[in-house]
Amino acid sequence: MSQLTTMTYEVTDRIARITLDRPERGNGIVPALPVELAACVERADLDPDVHVIVLSGNGKGFCGGYDLVDSAEGLGVTDATGPAATDHGDAGPEPSPDRPTRAAAATDDDTDGPDATIDLAPPDDPRAWPGPPPHRPPPAGAPTHPWTTALNHDPDGTWDPMVDYAMMSRNVRGFMSLFHANKPVVCKVHGFCVAGGTDMALCSDLLVIAADAKIGYPPARVWGSPTTALWTQRLGAQRAKRLLFTGDSLSGAEALEWGLAVEAPDAADLDARTEILLERIARVPVNQLMLHKLLVNQELTNQGMHSTQVLGTVLDGITRHTPEGHAFQRRAAEAGFRRAVRERDEPFGDAGSSTFKG
Amino acid sequence: MSQLTTMTYEVTDRIARITLDRPERGNGIVPALPVELAACVERADLDPDVHVIVLSGNGKGFCGGYDLVDSAEGLGVTDATGPAATDHGDAGPEPSPDRPTRAAAATDDDTDGPDATIDLAPPDDPRAWPGPPPHRPPPAGAPTHPWTTALNHDPDGTWDPMVDYAMMSRNVRGFMSLFHANKPVVCKVHGFCVAGGTDMALCSDLLVIAADAKIGYPPARVWGSPTTALWTQRLGAQRAKRLLFTGDSLSGAEALEWGLAVEAPDAADLDARTEILLERIARVPVNQLMLHKLLVNQELTNQGMHSTQVLGTVLDGITRHTPEGHAFQRRAAEAGFRRAVRERDEPFGDAGSSTFKG
Repeated sequence: MSQLTTMTYEVTDRIARITLDRPERGNGIVPALPVELAACVERADLDPDVHVIVLSGNGKGFCGGYDLVDSAEGLGVTDATGPAATDHGDAGPEPSPDRPTRAAAATDDDTDGPDATIDLAPPDDPRAWPGPPPHRPPPAGAPTHPWTTALNHDPDGTWDPMVDYAMMSRNVRGFMSLFHANKPVVCKVHGFCVAGGTDMALCSDLLVIAADAKIGYPPARVWGSPTTALWTQRLGAQRAKRLLFTGDSLSGAEALEWGLAVEAPDAADLDARTEILLERIARVPVNQLMLHKLLVNQELTNQGMHSTQVLGTVLDGITRHTPEGHAFQRRAAEAGFRRAVRERDEPFGDAGSSTFKG
Repeated sequence: MSQLTTMTYEVTDRIARITLDRPERGNGIVPALPVELAACVERADLDPDVHVIVLSGNGKGFCGGYDLVDSAEGLGVTDATGPAATDHGDAGPEPSPDRPTRAAAATDDDTDGPDATIDLAPPDDPRAWPGPPPHRPPPAGAPTHPWTTALNHDPDGTWDPMVDYAMMSRNVRGFMSLFHANKPVVCKVHGFCVAGGTDMALCSDLLVIAADAKIGYPPARVWGSPTTALWTQRLGAQRAKRLLFTGDSLSGAEALEWGLAVEAPDAADLDARTEILLERIARVPVNQLMLHKLLVNQELTNQGMHSTQVLGTVLDGITRHTPEGHAFQRRAAEAGFRRAVRERDEPFGDAGSSTFKG
């Protein structure tokens, strides 16, 4: 696990702690992240000293979604100016008209932090595709190769939805390692958990969310559909539609009220309350924990969860190839992703950390 | 129905009243109980004067789970000292070192009450396997014969999971008679409803729980998995996991908050509030009640409830054959079930009627 580049892993007192660790990028999702996540989960699962896994993030928030610097790599946005951002839209400084182009930004460590060089590394650079052996950079032409993704997002070309599915479903597989883990996973959310970040949160078993944190899927508005698609399971059909029809987010306090969180302590108490829950679970024998997770998850698989996730992943590809999706991509290329995201969210009054709902 | 030994049955004003009636044993579940329950439900279903069924219990609480005196019979705990108890752990007096052995306790009516003679009757005694004709004691070697169960729980032997399943799935079938009943079933819970007692509560249609009652599945910690497995349907996956990963229970007030109860009146108002609900349901034509129960239950069966229950029942057998399950069984043999249950729950701070959750 010495190759971990997107998270840290440690075990203390029967608890495996997986901590997203690219705070300069809002713990944005890059291709290595789901691979490393699955590897850490498997390590915890196989470690007889571990009873429960906790997933959290370093920095200002849990996860701001897919790292749009990285996404730009795959989207042919070769003339994007300004620092890209996670979907949360606040992981980088404001763009300015005289900022260097993306290509130049690769060396602009002062603004994007050292991880920007990882995001922008050439696709054959192993740093861009890290992970435990035998994880290797994909061969040219593979559905997961960034150049394949770029070609498949050319608005003037014809996209292949199955190439898109082959790419994106591998992220789903990584996130779902949390669901398929033998052992319970508690996800601790502080600050923000938006867009692709919610895939990790909702694939976890139990959510503890700071009362003032923001959790939601704003790309429901444009350029996104939840690929792991667990909102309906979590909230029921009507409340899932309430969020997805608007892209609105919930505060942690609201998430508790809707049953999305099991607890929503004040931010100052988040760590302490999470530890109490972890310690309580860690007292129970692993075999009891494992079989109860199987029992509850069986119900979700019975209810067709997998086929919904296949549909969600296909639909996510579609959202990136609609007229509106192409327009969003073009706007991001012109003005930077941070501005495009802000322009998407400002009409709804909830850009940044706001959870305004009219 | 003159043979009823574990419950009473009466009909008043369109309401069939099934009342668990072994208060000295916390209405603990013995093999006859699920059989008698199904018979009472069928009688109510076929009675044109009945519109709705109410299930409740006499004594300090609704049901303390499987009667561990009886379970001991099946577990080869032939040297258990002290009175056994239901899983709730408070249905019998504290064990003392000089108490007679289980075999002798069969005649110890002063401490365990007259029902102890039923629990401890030889397996070929019809009293041990009562129920309406043609219910008869199982033949020697049948999966439901207590000696078969005893042999199948010998820690030094090799257990047969399908023999265990054949035995336990018949209890599930009895509890599920409440779900499959044509007519609505309201379950009224006072005091405690824990472990196997929750099978009957959750298989009922509507739950009215006293605000101060305790409802939960502490054997999730060791030696149990919910066989009717309806927690996920009732609470959603996350809240079901929150309870099963810890064995934590809810108060009636919390059960209302989580949607497990439709009402949680003060204990003093429990009977009156339940009667108002029953009277209200009883006003509706039977055919309307029947078709609405069919309509809603259809959704649960569509979602794969049955296969989850099959898994839950297999997993329950597994929990009684893990190293931890065997250790629990041995500890019960040494110190009595009451003490073993208390030792299981005290580290969690919720032994007895407490619902402490850290």
